[in-house]
Amino acid sequence: MQDNQADKNIQEIFEELLSSKRFQYLKTVLMDLHPADIAEALQKMDPENVMAVIRQMDTETAARVFLEIDPPFRKVLFQKLDDQTAVDLVLSMDSDDAADVIGELEPDKAEKILGGMPFEEFREVKTLLRHDEETAGGIMALEVVAMPETLSARDALKELRRQAEDLEDVYNIYAVDHSGVLKGVVSLKELVLASPKKSLNEFMDKEPVAIHTKMDQEEVANIFKKYDLASAPVVDEHNRLAGRITFDDIMDVAEEEASEDIALMAGITDEKIHGQSIWRISSVRLPWLMVAFIGEMVSALVMSRFHASLERVLAAAFFIPLMMAMGGNVGIQSATVVIRGLAVGDIGIKDTMPRLLREILGAMLNGLIIACILVTIVTFWQNEFRFGLVLGVSLILVIINAALFGTLVPFVLKMAGVDPAIATGPFITTSNDILGLMVYFGMVALFLPKVM
Amino acid sequence: MQDNQADKNIQEIFEELLSSKRFQYLKTVLMDLHPADIAEALQKMDPENVMAVIRQMDTETAARVFLEIDPPFRKVLFQKLDDQTAVDLVLSMDSDDAADVIGELEPDKAEKILGGMPFEEFREVKTLLRHDEETAGGIMALEVVAMPETLSARDALKELRRQAEDLEDVYNIYAVDHSGVLKGVVSLKELVLASPKKSLNEFMDKEPVAIHTKMDQEEVANIFKKYDLASAPVVDEHNRLAGRITFDDIMDVAEEEASEDIALMAGITDEKIHGQSIWRISSVRLPWLMVAFIGEMVSALVMSRFHASLERVLAAAFFIPLMMAMGGNVGIQSATVVIRGLAVGDIGIKDTMPRLLREILGAMLNGLIIACILVTIVTFWQNEFRFGLVLGVSLILVIINAALFGTLVPFVLKMAGVDPAIATGPFITTSNDILGLMVYFGMVALFLPKVM
Repeated sequence: MQDNQADKNIQEIFEELLSSKRFQYLKTVLMDLHPADIAEALQKMDPENVMAVIRQMDTETAARVFLEIDPPFRKVLFQKLDDQTAVDLVLSMDSDDAADVIGELEPDKAEKILGGMPFEEFREVKTLLRHDEETAGGIMALEVVAMPETLSARDALKELRRQAEDLEDVYNIYAVDHSGVLKGVVSLKELVLASPKKSLNEFMDKEPVAIHTKMDQEEVANIFKKYDLASAPVVDEHNRLAGRITFDDIMDVAEEEASEDIALMAGITDEKIHGQSIWRISSVRLPWLMVAFIGEMVSALVMSRFHASLERVLAAAFFIPLMMAMGGNVGIQSATVVIRGLAVGDIGIKDTMPRLLREILGAMLNGLIIACILVTIVTFWQNEFRFGLVLGVSLILVIINAALFGTLVPFVLKMAGVDPAIATGPFITTSNDILGLMVYFGMVALFLPKVM
Repeated sequence: MQDNQADKNIQEIFEELLSSKRFQYLKTVLMDLHPADIAEALQKMDPENVMAVIRQMDTETAARVFLEIDPPFRKVLFQKLDDQTAVDLVLSMDSDDAADVIGELEPDKAEKILGGMPFEEFREVKTLLRHDEETAGGIMALEVVAMPETLSARDALKELRRQAEDLEDVYNIYAVDHSGVLKGVVSLKELVLASPKKSLNEFMDKEPVAIHTKMDQEEVANIFKKYDLASAPVVDEHNRLAGRITFDDIMDVAEEEASEDIALMAGITDEKIHGQSIWRISSVRLPWLMVAFIGEMVSALVMSRFHASLERVLAAAFFIPLMMAMGGNVGIQSATVVIRGLAVGDIGIKDTMPRLLREILGAMLNGLIIACILVTIVTFWQNEFRFGLVLGVSLILVIINAALFGTLVPFVLKMAGVDPAIATGPFITTSNDILGLMVYFGMVALFLPKVM
């Protein structure tokens, strides 16, 4: 059921069964499919048909399918559900998923659903909604298996059977004291293998990796990757167990953060990198193009100041693309290494100076190599060694400038609390263009009259 | 232990304890630390000191620390280990990790280690080394908990206790028939909650998501994300259980693939995005800069052909940066959306035509908006409406051309089996520059003599 062909078939089967009104058969088909596959097929159908399919599922399955549907489409579908069905669906979700779904709805629809929920679940979701979406508190689930640390392994297994019935997955058991403070973690495997009479505090991990509710989700993801965690407890400021985060939340975070970085680096506004409609394609990109447009108009203005030099040595214009491209490429290379390093945690702000030094030396080396080739080519082509020399020196300066700019800007952005990924976007590359052209034409204006 | 300050302290503590030869205290400190934290501190120390620290650990801990160290440094350290210690280390690792470590060593060191291993482990590692590193077979571990599907839950738990002692983590139990064919999967939680007398085939998932040994790791990662899997069985061509992949392998894959994509997009050769030495910084980037250099020399050649037009209307040179930047930004935007979509599985090859159409229409819209602004500005600035018009029309053509190119190339590369991420790298952006400049100067040469 994993390739596109199969998806297409599922969609076709749904539509055929709907149009022939064979609902009983549709029910059977739905029971055999994985919610993720159902969701993938539904995303390509129109909302009316989707609603008709959803009506054939039990609440449990429908809830799981809804969680796999992309948020914008999910919002459309929720708007069409009657309030009671919406409440039932949300109640079959884990608290974190319920909070995510409710958080993305129109305020009045969200209020209606919250109003229809039992007090306990209402309180849970409200608690979660208070956390910033991009922190540990925003991605954690409140459903945890927690028990006193003094329980024996045998009793813990019994208690687990009682608590775990409603939980989708269990990886760890959390041991807490009477006021809910986290004392230790036991993995399910350890619990199963433990001798029945041992109490939890005899074999639990007493210094588990604990995540604070306010921690940024990117940092949480880095901790999960560093320690290869399947699941980790989240604690509040008094070290009380507040919830848990599992690896699947982290995979979503990692993909989201990578997509966000890639989008920013390419100059596309929006976390969701795939614009669907033409209007959307246009609107998420136009702002960045306008930035580049304004910048390059400044470039034009800079160049018009040098029109006297340009008139005298028209060939200087031929090498504008070269200067821009070399500066642009070097800037993006340097910036990308720093951005990615900062994102995955391999580089910290303390690395600024050594990194800067290495990047500039590396850029100088490459600049020197390419400048030598350039001088040789231009000397033969234009029959002008001195012109070639001016070009070569300009190229080295442009490259060093770009490396410096490309390395420094991500660090400065990080220190200022801005996502460094923006540094390879149009704003910085355009500034780099203007600076590079000023260096180039400055050199041309300064030295060409003297050498030619 | 998670921030840079703490890492620095660990490193300092190690070095202090080494220089004062307080090895017993060092041993105690090591026991309290997480292997990932030890590895992070060791990476900043020189190899001699690292070896001295490693000698204070038990084999189990040392093996876990080694797995957290970056491969290039790990290779250096392994080269310094005597053969017996190296064999012991490798034997305490899971088979997949052992194969990874051995696979990255010098051939003669690898042979020596393999020669020192017991036959069973030797055979396992050899089997794994045969698989392509970037396939499911290359990232799976051979250690699985497998048992007959006819076992009762009670007996399965007993069998699990017997098999699981040596395993780091257990998420699923795999039910197989007498010839090893995978029949079903039971999660540890389901097994614990099942009533003791039920046999596995009464409650196991009989249609588990199974991954073929030859499947590409990027595809495996997409399946894990789609179905939120903690662990999945890997089967051979006869559907026999060959191993298992766990979410932590997948997180590594996802990060690796994202870094690889980002590196390629920025024009940096090598999977590992962080170059350490200046020579390395230079060598992984120079090839791409040479590509850009050659391309932009072609641009220079193209422009020299148009020198007559350029002499007549020098102002045309002022707008070279604008044309290049707009074409470049639009091309990267379109390409990035397609590349990322192809990588995370949101876009398939069948989407080529509709995507192309939408991208071009979106680009036309943005081109039109920016061109109108350009015409207005140039008309006032240069006092030349007709020149502005030529510029405006050129800009629209350059933008459409870039969108077409940026969208189409990733699809073509994907079909040709090349990583589409390369499409925003220097090769394509440079081609885009040349094409864009040809369009621009073609328009200038064609229409300017007529209008001015």
